Amino acid sequence: MNTITKTISRLLLFTALAGVAIQAQQKPCATVSKFGPDDQIGNVNYITPARTLAASKLVTTGKAYRLGIETNKNTPAYGTRTFGITVAQPGQAGGASFGPNKITHNDDMITGWVGIGSQIDGFGHAGIDDLYFNCNRGRDFAQVDGLKKLGIENIPAIATRAVLLDMAVYFGTEMVKEGVAFNRAEIEGAMKRQGIRAIEKGDIVLFYTGWMSLLGKDDKRFIAANPGLGREGARYLASLGVAAVGADTANFEAIPFEQGAGMYEVHQILLALNGIHILENLKLDEMARDKAWESFFTLGPARITGGVQAWINPIVIR
Amino acid sequence: MNTITKTISRLLLFTALAGVAIQAQQKPCATVSKFGPDDQIGNVNYITPARTLAASKLVTTGKAYRLGIETNKNTPAYGTRTFGITVAQPGQAGGASFGPNKITHNDDMITGWVGIGSQIDGFGHAGIDDLYFNCNRGRDFAQVDGLKKLGIENIPAIATRAVLLDMAVYFGTEMVKEGVAFNRAEIEGAMKRQGIRAIEKGDIVLFYTGWMSLLGKDDKRFIAANPGLGREGARYLASLGVAAVGADTANFEAIPFEQGAGMYEVHQILLALNGIHILENLKLDEMARDKAWESFFTLGPARITGGVQAWINPIVIR
Amino acid sequence: MNTITKTISRLLLFTALAGVAIQAQQKPCATVSKFGPDDQIGNVNYITPARTLAASKLVTTGKAYRLGIETNKNTPAYGTRTFGITVAQPGQAGGASFGPNKITHNDDMITGWVGIGSQIDGFGHAGIDDLYFNCNRGRDFAQVDGLKKLGIENIPAIATRAVLLDMAVYFGTEMVKEGVAFNRAEIEGAMKRQGIRAIEKGDIVLFYTGWMSLLGKDDKRFIAANPGLGREGARYLASLGVAAVGADTANFEAIPFEQGAGMYEVHQILLALNGIHILENLKLDEMARDKAWESFFTLGPARITGGVQAWINPIVIR
Amino acid sequence: MNTITKTISRLLLFTALAGVAIQAQQKPCATVSKFGPDDQIGNVNYITPARTLAASKLVTTGKAYRLGIETNKNTPAYGTRTFGITVAQPGQAGGASFGPNKITHNDDMITGWVGIGSQIDGFGHAGIDDLYFNCNRGRDFAQVDGLKKLGIENIPAIATRAVLLDMAVYFGTEMVKEGVAFNRAEIEGAMKRQGIRAIEKGDIVLFYTGWMSLLGKDDKRFIAANPGLGREGARYLASLGVAAVGADTANFEAIPFEQGAGMYEVHQILLALNGIHILENLKLDEMARDKAWESFFTLGPARITGGVQAWINPIVIR
Repeated sequence: MNTITKTISRLLLFTALAGVAIQAQQKPCATVSKFGPDDQIGNVNYITPARTLAASKLVTTGKAYRLGIETNKNTPAYGTRTFGITVAQPGQAGGASFGPNKITHNDDMITGWVGIGSQIDGFGHAGIDDLYFNCNRGRDFAQVDGLKKLGIENIPAIATRAVLLDMAVYFGTEMVKEGVAFNRAEIEGAMKRQGIRAIEKGDIVLFYTGWMSLLGKDDKRFIAANPGLGREGARYLASLGVAAVGADTANFEAIPFEQGAGMYEVHQILLALNGIHILENLKLDEMARDKAWESFFTLGPARITGGVQAWINPIVIR
Repeated sequence: MNTITKTISRLLLFTALAGVAIQAQQKPCATVSKFGPDDQIGNVNYITPARTLAASKLVTTGKAYRLGIETNKNTPAYGTRTFGITVAQPGQAGGASFGPNKITHNDDMITGWVGIGSQIDGFGHAGIDDLYFNCNRGRDFAQVDGLKKLGIENIPAIATRAVLLDMAVYFGTEMVKEGVAFNRAEIEGAMKRQGIRAIEKGDIVLFYTGWMSLLGKDDKRFIAANPGLGREGARYLASLGVAAVGADTANFEAIPFEQGAGMYEVHQILLALNGIHILENLKLDEMARDKAWESFFTLGPARITGGVQAWINPIVIR
Repeated sequence: MNTITKTISRLLLFTALAGVAIQAQQKPCATVSKFGPDDQIGNVNYITPARTLAASKLVTTGKAYRLGIETNKNTPAYGTRTFGITVAQPGQAGGASFGPNKITHNDDMITGWVGIGSQIDGFGHAGIDDLYFNCNRGRDFAQVDGLKKLGIENIPAIATRAVLLDMAVYFGTEMVKEGVAFNRAEIEGAMKRQGIRAIEKGDIVLFYTGWMSLLGKDDKRFIAANPGLGREGARYLASLGVAAVGADTANFEAIPFEQGAGMYEVHQILLALNGIHILENLKLDEMARDKAWESFFTLGPARITGGVQAWINPIVIR
Repeated sequence: MNTITKTISRLLLFTALAGVAIQAQQKPCATVSKFGPDDQIGNVNYITPARTLAASKLVTTGKAYRLGIETNKNTPAYGTRTFGITVAQPGQAGGASFGPNKITHNDDMITGWVGIGSQIDGFGHAGIDDLYFNCNRGRDFAQVDGLKKLGIENIPAIATRAVLLDMAVYFGTEMVKEGVAFNRAEIEGAMKRQGIRAIEKGDIVLFYTGWMSLLGKDDKRFIAANPGLGREGARYLASLGVAAVGADTANFEAIPFEQGAGMYEVHQILLALNGIHILENLKLDEMARDKAWESFFTLGPARITGGVQAWINPIVIR
């Protein structure tokens, strides 16, 4: 009885957050999508050709940035995640080659967890007690050989506006401290300082914190905590209809978690309750240096069927 | 002696092709880069901000295309390549969750060969008797735990013009037959028909053949052969300075190989001798249907350190 | 309420089966070991030096049998399990070798699920609603990077008596049909026919069914069902104190399951409730042909830390 | 020319060692088996039922030893080898279970190199310039998806006599120093001290060095070098017809290599030239403490098709 009561109060809480009614096990549920019962892409729906066209006009110099960092066995990894690559020369033992043209070749195999390095979190990544985005239950779709719904392969072409918020400059530091939470006040403050008038539907909001300067120097600190989005800030960005959010940190949200916050609750607010993708470990220093506040952002995650996350390398042009 | 003689004539042949002098084991060698001894990216060097800016002007409707197909255990795979994904719920056996907010999560691991599905071939993929692009010897850089040079992580942001050649319409068919080779005459013929004035330095040239209509219907035929670029066509495109070439086929080049051609010799001409990346298994039908002949092409392959190939999903906007 | 009631009746049922009292979450629980709260090896405890010595006397001809079948990508596999091996020649691209003695070498990597081919099921393999052998909860020990208790590495040296029951001859057939359940009557009947006086503490009981004649001929039938131990037979063998049981089938227990039986309930009875290991996919035809009814059985599963199962190849000598 | 000359002198040298005639590329060759052109198991052929029967008589107390150490991500590993295990609960996200009996289960997957922890080296592991045991060329059988000859699956049941030589006591130390080579004098000296009359055909010779006391304390030293068999000692044991040799070290042979020895030349002498398997990382301290000089040794490596090595856990009984 106690458990049932707690579950109900929890669901009521999330209902309040999401502004939707609860009817357990039937739609609408706590994580219902505003884009209909078959929706698997959430706010990426807001990226229309008109918005893509408008964003393309932000290209004024032709300078292109790759936001991906490298993924390898030394990249700081969460929990027990590991990564390996194997390169072989199939059929070429002893210096064999193929054909009169003596072609030789290498092939590579990956054996590793996807959540290492620059990554996008799909909607199958985080849920609330097994309830994932758009009323999908993990027990129904989270199979061992790949997600049967909400897989990363569903994400359409992403080409939209990116807004970069330089939180380091906002806080007057080189590197924002762990635990510092970005909420509405900080977001609007940074926007004002940078002269950004509005965050709009379909935008990608990127937070520069300077945190990546720890990479290779203090990997333990880098992965254990970071500054990042707070709960109220997440709900604020959700209210604006952003398509995705990202940062130059491993965990994206503020850690240690805000006073009263649950574990990775911002992940739940974004992924499960609002259909907003999260981008982690993005290299943003060059954009920050160039004051590339508004730019044209493109992303095509490799379409691994049933993938939870994806290694990414967004291309931003301004 | 016989072998040595054959090797020498072979190298002389490639020298003739590449127009460079040979001095075995020292630079310049048969596969020397015109961008200097440290170059690892070949013709991607041609993608300058000016060209990126010009290409961005091709965006006129805001329609975006994702060119990636899905990669999974059923995707047609070359040789003995295999692919697997594993999804787990770490720490959540028996329905456990974390925190008062009861967060649950899935993670995914890949165990598979990269050369399955939409992919980019890095310069470490194909060589001539262990000699790879820019005078790099496989024995020096092709280590079992990842390439020590020419790895996929070196590729910079790609944002440039794509030219799509509809070879199916050119040949007056729905699907071009296997073995049909695209050489200078066919390339120029298709360009003329489509009103494309020139292929330029830094361009991506994409061939639509209709071949992907076989996917899921006759996978065996799909992977065994295909129409594609011929040797003379490869040298012609190299002379124009293209950054990369791609197609909606698994092998990219014409198979069965042209009369007198070696095994995957077009791969050698492009990757090893000219520093031109190859994109395979691209989904191009929608672009062809829309007559998206010239468009803005962006690609950021995930930066797996030491990778030979990469799963890709280029985003094209027009 | 309904669920709670059902759970309670279920636990009471298992209590009756196991003859132990239930006190949820505290010992003793439904799966308590008779060998104490720290026990992780169950009835293997019965294999004492005295029993090993006695069993060694069964060697009279010196003929040795390997009971393992091969494991590879074509071995019939349960559910979504897959298997792969990769062989590489590290550091030997282009025909390189090491030292003046020109040593060359191959190395191999496995990427595969352990439950394929001849295998031993550890006590972490099957539980009752997340309750595993000796009152261990899956949520406590079943971590994604390996079991923290009940791992396969805990199994001590196994050297004891094996009793082979030829169920094919008992049923007067070459291959016993799927679903046929071996219970006390069948076990005692086969023993009597073969002149085996008793099954004793620490014994390994092996069932020959002829089922492996399907291998490579009808793999689908082989993996989908088989004859095997029934629930009453499992409890009977448990009452005798056997250390492990095995068969020449993939699922070991009778499938389709007996009337009224749950899913893989015999696995629960053996592994979770009685601490008896299960050996699957054993090649027993040669032993059956030789009428090797009683023999000296040795097994040392590779000690992968935290392993759930292990690929095995028991050596039996008579 | 120079290379050819060196190759020839090298082959002549090995010919002298092996006492066989050379006719390049045709049998007999430098690595020909004395058991015929189809032989894949070398001196394991010497393990006859008569020898197995005789060895079984060495069991006098029934005490059984498992010689395997644990393999996991922390086990000292050679070169770039890595190891991982993944445990999942297929179909059980959110606390789901199966059937009215609520069965839950764990499955495990290995992603790792086999040459970590206790292992047997198959004959496909080490060769002389791509020439492996019994005139097999690597380019012919060493395919990327598994060896097509000399795979570990070919090894028959091993049940024979083990002779343990306590080299630590022989040298009057707790742990023999790295680089100390065991040759005929040391082998015979240790035998004499222990009262072992003869090493015979089909025997397994095990060397205890005390080296494993470094495990977990100085893993770097443990893997980098060790005392072990020397070249002359290897040829001596080969002349006696031993089936396999083993030690409580990672590299088995003396490292730093003996004066004038090539890299891992003892591996070549044993595996390639004489068909003698090598067992590495065996836990022998308990046997040494018990003075278990002669015992009954059984080993059934899991039969992974095309495997180069195998994780092992031999069971020794005395």
